[in-house]
Amino acid sequence: MRLTCFCGALLLLVVLPAGCQGGNILVFPIEGSHWVNMDILIRELHSRGHNVTIVRPLKTWYIKDNTSYYHTVTVPVEKTLDKEFITSMIVEVMEYERGSLPLTNFLHLTIGMFGIFLEAHNSVGEFTTAMLDDNDLMRRLKDSKFDLVLTDPCWGGGVIVAKYLNLPLVYNVRWLIATEGHFPIAPSPLSYIPITGTGNTNKMSFFQRVKNVIVFWIGYTQHNLVIKYIYQKICDKYLGPDNDMHHLLQSADLWLMRVDFVFEFPRPTMPNAIYIGGFQCQPAKPLPDHLEEFMQSSGEHGVILMSLGTFVSELPVDLTEEIATAFAKLPQKVIWRYKGAKPSTLSNNTLLVDWMPQNDLLGHPKMKLFVAHGGTNGVQEAMYHAVPVVGIPLFFDQYDNLLRLSERGAAIILQLTLVDKDNNFLEAMQEVLTNSSYRTNMQRLSRLHRDQPIAPLDNAMFWIEFVMRHKGAAHLRTESYKMPWYTYYSVDVYLFVAGVFLAVLIMFWITIKCLYSVLCRKKVKRE
Amino acid sequence: MRLTCFCGALLLLVVLPAGCQGGNILVFPIEGSHWVNMDILIRELHSRGHNVTIVRPLKTWYIKDNTSYYHTVTVPVEKTLDKEFITSMIVEVMEYERGSLPLTNFLHLTIGMFGIFLEAHNSVGEFTTAMLDDNDLMRRLKDSKFDLVLTDPCWGGGVIVAKYLNLPLVYNVRWLIATEGHFPIAPSPLSYIPITGTGNTNKMSFFQRVKNVIVFWIGYTQHNLVIKYIYQKICDKYLGPDNDMHHLLQSADLWLMRVDFVFEFPRPTMPNAIYIGGFQCQPAKPLPDHLEEFMQSSGEHGVILMSLGTFVSELPVDLTEEIATAFAKLPQKVIWRYKGAKPSTLSNNTLLVDWMPQNDLLGHPKMKLFVAHGGTNGVQEAMYHAVPVVGIPLFFDQYDNLLRLSERGAAIILQLTLVDKDNNFLEAMQEVLTNSSYRTNMQRLSRLHRDQPIAPLDNAMFWIEFVMRHKGAAHLRTESYKMPWYTYYSVDVYLFVAGVFLAVLIMFWITIKCLYSVLCRKKVKRE
Repeated sequence: MRLTCFCGALLLLVVLPAGCQGGNILVFPIEGSHWVNMDILIRELHSRGHNVTIVRPLKTWYIKDNTSYYHTVTVPVEKTLDKEFITSMIVEVMEYERGSLPLTNFLHLTIGMFGIFLEAHNSVGEFTTAMLDDNDLMRRLKDSKFDLVLTDPCWGGGVIVAKYLNLPLVYNVRWLIATEGHFPIAPSPLSYIPITGTGNTNKMSFFQRVKNVIVFWIGYTQHNLVIKYIYQKICDKYLGPDNDMHHLLQSADLWLMRVDFVFEFPRPTMPNAIYIGGFQCQPAKPLPDHLEEFMQSSGEHGVILMSLGTFVSELPVDLTEEIATAFAKLPQKVIWRYKGAKPSTLSNNTLLVDWMPQNDLLGHPKMKLFVAHGGTNGVQEAMYHAVPVVGIPLFFDQYDNLLRLSERGAAIILQLTLVDKDNNFLEAMQEVLTNSSYRTNMQRLSRLHRDQPIAPLDNAMFWIEFVMRHKGAAHLRTESYKMPWYTYYSVDVYLFVAGVFLAVLIMFWITIKCLYSVLCRKKVKRE
Repeated sequence: MRLTCFCGALLLLVVLPAGCQGGNILVFPIEGSHWVNMDILIRELHSRGHNVTIVRPLKTWYIKDNTSYYHTVTVPVEKTLDKEFITSMIVEVMEYERGSLPLTNFLHLTIGMFGIFLEAHNSVGEFTTAMLDDNDLMRRLKDSKFDLVLTDPCWGGGVIVAKYLNLPLVYNVRWLIATEGHFPIAPSPLSYIPITGTGNTNKMSFFQRVKNVIVFWIGYTQHNLVIKYIYQKICDKYLGPDNDMHHLLQSADLWLMRVDFVFEFPRPTMPNAIYIGGFQCQPAKPLPDHLEEFMQSSGEHGVILMSLGTFVSELPVDLTEEIATAFAKLPQKVIWRYKGAKPSTLSNNTLLVDWMPQNDLLGHPKMKLFVAHGGTNGVQEAMYHAVPVVGIPLFFDQYDNLLRLSERGAAIILQLTLVDKDNNFLEAMQEVLTNSSYRTNMQRLSRLHRDQPIAPLDNAMFWIEFVMRHKGAAHLRTESYKMPWYTYYSVDVYLFVAGVFLAVLIMFWITIKCLYSVLCRKKVKRE
């Protein structure tokens, strides 16, 4: 990599190397919605003259073979994350949820989601093993002289490969395996840092704090089990002794966090966590003709956009009927991203689409409302374009993401079970459409989000190139996670100090006692 | 303040309001070296079209009356921080230190420094009281419609004035009263965050950790006493009830930290702490003719710069003689900032100066070595210009600052007592001049420091203007400091969970016991 390339375009007082051509980057990506934003980083890296290589399994959902902006290394592994299984599981969970009691809901959801979670880690584990077993492949990767590994640590494969190749490591991260994204590297008091899955904010009642602590420990245990039974075994086999997977996960040079502090509640962070939330957002580009016509046909009422994310291509039939009925009652036009059977109650005002340019639609002046499931990407895009939200969270972090909008008065959250009992869904949409405070609040969030000294995508690029220029970023990261817990929390020190204090007290007491008895004896003798 | 002014010069993907004209800023500054860097911020604010007003006491050391770049409001208070007292105290401490044992040193230093510390807080307290007592003045300040208060929270006056005027608050900060700068707002495990004054790094042995914990608690107690007996009384009198000074100190919208993570060890930080270390550094400007001639006359050997900071204009005579003798033995030329009597051993190669353009001298290509006391400003400047250091720390944070360089192999630290016993000082200078690793390491630090996405001074300006644009930055700050400690640390939750667990266990045990006795009785009856 040439280190001599300087870009002097930024009007800075000091000379900063703001670009670096010819970096060589290995990407270990994740499927699903995680790929959507990794893809954006990769395109940008390519456009800045970097060479990007992606490792991917044979059966992949979205990751195409060699494209114009990256090369692929395809690992011939049979087992991969089964999209059919996951999709069917999700539909089942939704159907179950629509007709059941809260407690069974919760249990079923938990078990179902845990199944998906294990399935995902297992297949990533097998994929990683297949890679490391392939001596030719690993030699080729070593010979390629990469500058760094870019991965999403939601699963642990990329971390192990980076260590095997002895390369600097950069995360594009929302979650770290089963627990809070950067929980392990910065101290995070459970009294004001809400754990995802609790539905807590940063201001909690006593019982919310109890829930926060309990959910944390469940997640923590889950995290430890997955590491122990999947990733640590791979570490032991391929990396040799003394490679603790917990430590490897925490030793990344940089954490590019896919949130910002307009969206996220304030929390402590280590200096190697770079917040790039909304990096995928861009000013809207012109729409295809048919969509632009549809938008304009909405007149003064404007348009509602509905999407329940990458995973949900089908919904239970009764649910789609309810949704279509609710839309039919509105004067707005609706664009609904949906692949399943056309609901019988679908009205003329609603357009079903397989795919849509979501960012450009959200940025269109006619856009009035976003009905969303609450994935991080969609929520950040809604914020960027100042479109208020009616959220129907399904699973994972979606409720918690939407909560960050509703807490700021920019969204209404609706349980899936309540769509559309007693017209809850219809009324929520009407409320957001007619009460201007939702839009005003979202505009405020948008203003704050856009007001940054450097655009999030540029910031991400700067820091990736920083790691390439300096062969890592060791000076920004702590190694405190290597301490045993009693050292980390200074328990040993406090015990020692208390011990010394006690010893001094006892010695003092003994001295006094001795002195007293000597003096008394003398007194007695004299008497 | 006009919010409509946008600067589109930065090549960013999103439109960022990068400037804001006509802001109105009230500055509550601190004397001494703290004024040096506040002055730089104020000049820059003025050059960006902001209106700056400074409150200052009648007897001030450095803060001039109305200048071209700020207005002053002079408070006619008699008592102010006595420079003579402090200077004489410092010289006495040095003289004492030169001839005494380590333990007495330590005690004397501590007592002397604590005297200065109390004197400083008392005079700031009186200054603040005089301000708040002056109804006309306070009405004038209220009518001035300031957008924010900029202050250094090393002393607490500015914080109280900001609250009284109900204005957003921005810190230009290295220290918060008696303890670690941002210790109170981000959790800071004492196991890897060295407390200033301990001489610890982020990697500590067991006994270093013991020292860290003890020094922390001493500082913490000192902090609490100063607040209780000086600032809280002012709060109670002028701000009304329920204004806890601890909370006020922690409620600032922004903390502009005068360090960066090339200098400072990595540590957790809240999102409203902005690291602007080295913001005062600039590429060297041409020197005045006589200095340039002196620099050039040094030939291939180059020049040594010596300064012991703003406070130290005089040194004990034996010390200056020793220093002058050591300089005389070197082939380099020396520029020595010193106001006292000319040492008899002064050689031709050494130039005594009252004042010097330190930044321009450090940035001169002939500059080979900086003999410094280790103030934050000087250390950051040496880093920026990649000049290795021989450090002679005197007090406050100076040893700890120098330690951050010596740990990275870019400086040698020398105790004042050892100048120049056994030629220690001479040898330290020779070592740094001849062993190229010091310069190489400093160059590495300099490269890292300069490699930032936005220059520190621009970053400081961006965030000050951000607070003005958005009337604060509440979304970046936690209010967790308002919790009682047992809530903050979830002690109440853990006790509750343990209680519930115990209750369940006991009930289970009782049930088993009852069942057992019932079953046994039946059995007995049957028999």
